Amino acid sequence: MKGVILGICPEARLVDLTHEVAPHDVLEGALFLESAWRFFPSGSIHLAVIDPGVGSRRKALGLRAGGHCFVGPDNGLFTFGLAADGWSAVSIEAPAYRLPEVSRTFHGRDIFAPAAAHLASGVPLERLGPIIVDPVRLALPHFRREGDEVVGEVIGSDRFGNLLTSVTVDGLGELAAQGAIAVELAGRELGTVASSYQEGPMGIPTPIIGSGGRLEIFVRNGSARAILGIGPGTPVKVRRA
Amino acid sequence: MKGVILGICPEARLVDLTHEVAPHDVLEGALFLESAWRFFPSGSIHLAVIDPGVGSRRKALGLRAGGHCFVGPDNGLFTFGLAADGWSAVSIEAPAYRLPEVSRTFHGRDIFAPAAAHLASGVPLERLGPIIVDPVRLALPHFRREGDEVVGEVIGSDRFGNLLTSVTVDGLGELAAQGAIAVELAGRELGTVASSYQEGPMGIPTPIIGSGGRLEIFVRNGSARAILGIGPGTPVKVRRA
Amino acid sequence: MKGVILGICPEARLVDLTHEVAPHDVLEGALFLESAWRFFPSGSIHLAVIDPGVGSRRKALGLRAGGHCFVGPDNGLFTFGLAADGWSAVSIEAPAYRLPEVSRTFHGRDIFAPAAAHLASGVPLERLGPIIVDPVRLALPHFRREGDEVVGEVIGSDRFGNLLTSVTVDGLGELAAQGAIAVELAGRELGTVASSYQEGPMGIPTPIIGSGGRLEIFVRNGSARAILGIGPGTPVKVRRA
Repeated sequence: MKGVILGICPEARLVDLTHEVAPHDVLEGALFLESAWRFFPSGSIHLAVIDPGVGSRRKALGLRAGGHCFVGPDNGLFTFGLAADGWSAVSIEAPAYRLPEVSRTFHGRDIFAPAAAHLASGVPLERLGPIIVDPVRLALPHFRREGDEVVGEVIGSDRFGNLLTSVTVDGLGELAAQGAIAVELAGRELGTVASSYQEGPMGIPTPIIGSGGRLEIFVRNGSARAILGIGPGTPVKVRRA
Repeated sequence: MKGVILGICPEARLVDLTHEVAPHDVLEGALFLESAWRFFPSGSIHLAVIDPGVGSRRKALGLRAGGHCFVGPDNGLFTFGLAADGWSAVSIEAPAYRLPEVSRTFHGRDIFAPAAAHLASGVPLERLGPIIVDPVRLALPHFRREGDEVVGEVIGSDRFGNLLTSVTVDGLGELAAQGAIAVELAGRELGTVASSYQEGPMGIPTPIIGSGGRLEIFVRNGSARAILGIGPGTPVKVRRA
Repeated sequence: MKGVILGICPEARLVDLTHEVAPHDVLEGALFLESAWRFFPSGSIHLAVIDPGVGSRRKALGLRAGGHCFVGPDNGLFTFGLAADGWSAVSIEAPAYRLPEVSRTFHGRDIFAPAAAHLASGVPLERLGPIIVDPVRLALPHFRREGDEVVGEVIGSDRFGNLLTSVTVDGLGELAAQGAIAVELAGRELGTVASSYQEGPMGIPTPIIGSGGRLEIFVRNGSARAILGIGPGTPVKVRRA
């Protein structure tokens, strides 16, 4: 993919974001991109390929949103970019902007990399193919208010083994405004939210607000994922302490 | 290695291809490079170091083939570049194009990175050392025709757990021209070749032609390597369906 | 972090050194940096974040030493840069050179990346915050002379499974000048020092002087770490052969 890009747009700056997303895990990729894209300069082109449907009838998506462009399979990977109005999207189909031979198993190389490189060279998004108004949206896990509690779930983990939850700092706003909050994970009381990793007692799972604005569970200098043996879907509850 | 390159040729564009080749596995590295190099712009310099023989009498190879340059140990890593005529090769020996101190354990840093950087700066290949006419060639696994079948073997796997075989799309040409083909792996019938990963039934190993032009065995949204517990050398047979 | 840097200093050249340091392992990171930094061009800025104390009272360090700059947590990661005189250091505190919002869990993005990018843009180190004269120093494992022996310990391993020790080539100078030397690891005689990996007998742990100038234990085409099951702290002794 990098070779293809540099062949089309030699002056492109290539930045590797991660190669650690689990194979086929579109949700993990979407969460990762959601946490990172805003920190890139306006006008950046985010090329992401987590593409279990490659070679099937799924579309190839070109998306402009929030002053950035996104290129990849139309499978929900960029759902976060569709949250606010003002986006526009195309189905990447124009033969002029793909490799002459397109395989059935590696559209990253044959379709997405060329499209991203042409965008980087100044080709307008609309030239890549017909406009689409209904890109696939992923059902991102949410949180809900239940009585005095905010209820969500574990949605993944990072490379340190910190558990990410579907509860965001926005969702906690009202509850947190009333004073200290306490967190329960899988029926187990975890106590109040730490304000840094160093505040967590050694070996004890502890809640914190992560840098992406999500409630997370960590173990100081350890892996909450490994210690708790917990995965996506585990319920999380937040209430007043 | 990257620091050394930028010290010699500050304008060099550095592209990481992979860091996931198994230690000491020259064949895996060779297969990986073979699948990628053509997609880089003409004139690219491919620096690869899988070098179990570092510090021994194995030569340091500089190779020009197909409009690209290749730099690394002379252990067969670039065998694919020797298939067609028109290549030229040197033994990298000139003291002017290596670091002043050369270790016995890290020629990537001390010999190969400087050589690649000097090539990128415009030094002609022939200045790096004497011409050699017999670079080491790896015995790449092949396929053969046996009666009505094409017979090959598993030669490795990718990060998704897809199994790569020694049977190429070229080798299947005649057989495939006669109609649908069926694949047998380790004595087990796998059925006909899918045209995309999505066509594979869940959990069932299925053949496909991969993006590198090789017959591969995959499991949809899973790992054929993990499910089959199969490694290099396992026989593969292809016949008319 | 890369997005933040390119937003501040678009012409910065980004080089990934490694993403394989174990989470929270400051010593491993320090040893890795120590082996690599000198090979980058003078004036390079080394940004490293192994930061279990993020969000606590640990300082953010900007260091100039040996003609290079170093940016990261003040936890000993750059101890090697304090060995020789002539360094200067600041506590990175100036609000103008960090992101507007600073999280408690990701100073790599919010403090260190902006500081490094401003340095790359030409901002003098001293503008980032007040001078500090006592950066945290890591207690790096050492070797000592005991009678006729040099005694040290295993301090880590690399991705090939080679075991690194605290014994350096400088520390062996006197002993090595007297003739061949022999190594004992955890009470087991390993014989004399090989001059290349290929000299090691298959399957047998063998000593060698690594490219970073440390005594290492390797297994030819294998992993000494896996075969020996040995970790940091294991004693190593060197004596005349």
